[in-house]
Amino acid sequence: MNHAIGIDIGGTYIKFGIFERNGACIFQDVLKMQQFPKAEMFVKTISAILKKQIAECNIKESIKGIGIGAPNGNFFTGSIVDAPNLPWKNHVALAHMMEQELQLPVALTNDANAAAIGEMLYGGAKEMKNFIVLTLGTGLGSGIVSDGKILYGNTGFAGELGHVIVVPDGRPCGCGRKGCLEKYVSATGIVNTALELIAQNKIPSKLSDISANLLDARMIHEAALQEDALALKAFEITGHYLGFAIANAVAITSPQAVFLLGGLALSGKLLFEPTILSLEKNILNIFAGTVEVLPSELPPDRAALLGAAALVWMNGNGRK
Amino acid sequence: MNHAIGIDIGGTYIKFGIFERNGACIFQDVLKMQQFPKAEMFVKTISAILKKQIAECNIKESIKGIGIGAPNGNFFTGSIVDAPNLPWKNHVALAHMMEQELQLPVALTNDANAAAIGEMLYGGAKEMKNFIVLTLGTGLGSGIVSDGKILYGNTGFAGELGHVIVVPDGRPCGCGRKGCLEKYVSATGIVNTALELIAQNKIPSKLSDISANLLDARMIHEAALQEDALALKAFEITGHYLGFAIANAVAITSPQAVFLLGGLALSGKLLFEPTILSLEKNILNIFAGTVEVLPSELPPDRAALLGAAALVWMNGNGRK
Repeated sequence: MNHAIGIDIGGTYIKFGIFERNGACIFQDVLKMQQFPKAEMFVKTISAILKKQIAECNIKESIKGIGIGAPNGNFFTGSIVDAPNLPWKNHVALAHMMEQELQLPVALTNDANAAAIGEMLYGGAKEMKNFIVLTLGTGLGSGIVSDGKILYGNTGFAGELGHVIVVPDGRPCGCGRKGCLEKYVSATGIVNTALELIAQNKIPSKLSDISANLLDARMIHEAALQEDALALKAFEITGHYLGFAIANAVAITSPQAVFLLGGLALSGKLLFEPTILSLEKNILNIFAGTVEVLPSELPPDRAALLGAAALVWMNGNGRK
Repeated sequence: MNHAIGIDIGGTYIKFGIFERNGACIFQDVLKMQQFPKAEMFVKTISAILKKQIAECNIKESIKGIGIGAPNGNFFTGSIVDAPNLPWKNHVALAHMMEQELQLPVALTNDANAAAIGEMLYGGAKEMKNFIVLTLGTGLGSGIVSDGKILYGNTGFAGELGHVIVVPDGRPCGCGRKGCLEKYVSATGIVNTALELIAQNKIPSKLSDISANLLDARMIHEAALQEDALALKAFEITGHYLGFAIANAVAITSPQAVFLLGGLALSGKLLFEPTILSLEKNILNIFAGTVEVLPSELPPDRAALLGAAALVWMNGNGRK
């Protein structure tokens, strides 16, 4: 039996594990990013843990490689580049560093691309060759699969749907521009929308009692479940922008499905209904009825981790 | 030596020709679409002409196939589907009909995809694997090449950049929606923009002397060359929307270059300068400096025709 190591690097946690080809997990653990102000320290630590685990399980011969999903990870270079939410700045040649330390082939891509690969191998996209995965967390990540392969474009950074501008001169974004999709469709985006609605003072809501610093997406979700009109309106607006952005992405890439993943996607029909309504309203006629909006079928807590491991079963590490 | 037949179907003219693999033309002719209210009549006529030509040139053995570019042409089905500017309505299985008549393999795709293939084989994209071709005519067509292949998506209709919505609730479009890119960036789009500027009556212009029914893109181009302020403003606005739409398309597909083709693209720096300015303003930082906006290097009068012929040298006809 063959095995793959997966590593999912996030701003707060680093999840990692060893998987069989069918996705079965034989080992999984987690580290806190704050332990590793430098990438070198992380590489030493995780390599030691993995070496020990590989020896204990007696699977040295069957480990075929390592797959890493990371924010701003570039498949073509194996590097993480200027990731705003990581302590590791500039270019970090993580794939190369891990290869040196563990003497195994390493492939690295961004976390949303990893999730898309996971969806294709182990989730709802098993029979699909053209689909999009959107990860709705603090920001909005996207992985686009076109003709069975991740769409990387010329730079390796293609698939940045979170930074498509949906509102010209809209909300300021961390990228320095205004009106990016992720400022409207993400955990922080819906909070911003709710705060704007509260400020307008037109819809009474118990969310008005919560201070801006404390309000989070989960509270809006819970209020919406109790039919709080302002919370429902916040989901409606979020779905409006998401459906609009999906319609434009469909005109460009024509996917069979768009999978939603991450905290906000767990709000279920509160998000899906207004999204699908907006998609149907905004989609070009030749694409009407050709694309579904679906929840991811991966376990929410390890979609990107499974996808990272699955990188090992794809062809090559992509480095030019 | 091998030869390919190319056919470029447009609302007014049908261009066709026989080409060597290097793009050299050994025969070219044109028919008027109004002669052919039905596709069957067209197939009979063009087949007779081509059979005669093939016999005269004594190249029956060397003809490898036929490539067709057509509005709303679908590579996967070989059909033209509901093309608004053609007299042939509903589904026209043109590839199949031509195959029956000429006993040659036929591949069919939309005209902008054909232009993109032409650019890749014979134009400015020879060394490129990721680029976009935009055809700026009465409407706006686009062909997207990703990793060396036309991006068709699940339906075969991917790459409809002309129908990305750039102005929510903007100008009504023939597709039934509002604010599509082609209502702003096309020969008709820039006329509309100029008419809006004339109606605002803020910028004096000799274009104000021309009736709305007569004003065309060429007049705006000529006025701009003479530094007419309103005409220059119309190009600036056109470039603004084009650069904005390119920036969003770059975030999704990350091309190395965007080639502009068609009447409006011949306006040169009048269009390119404001487009590049807007692209630089609107592009996500990780893509800054990674994409060029370039004029097509194909002969303007037969870019799509060359591309249609080039379809023969690509793999297969795409039909599922």
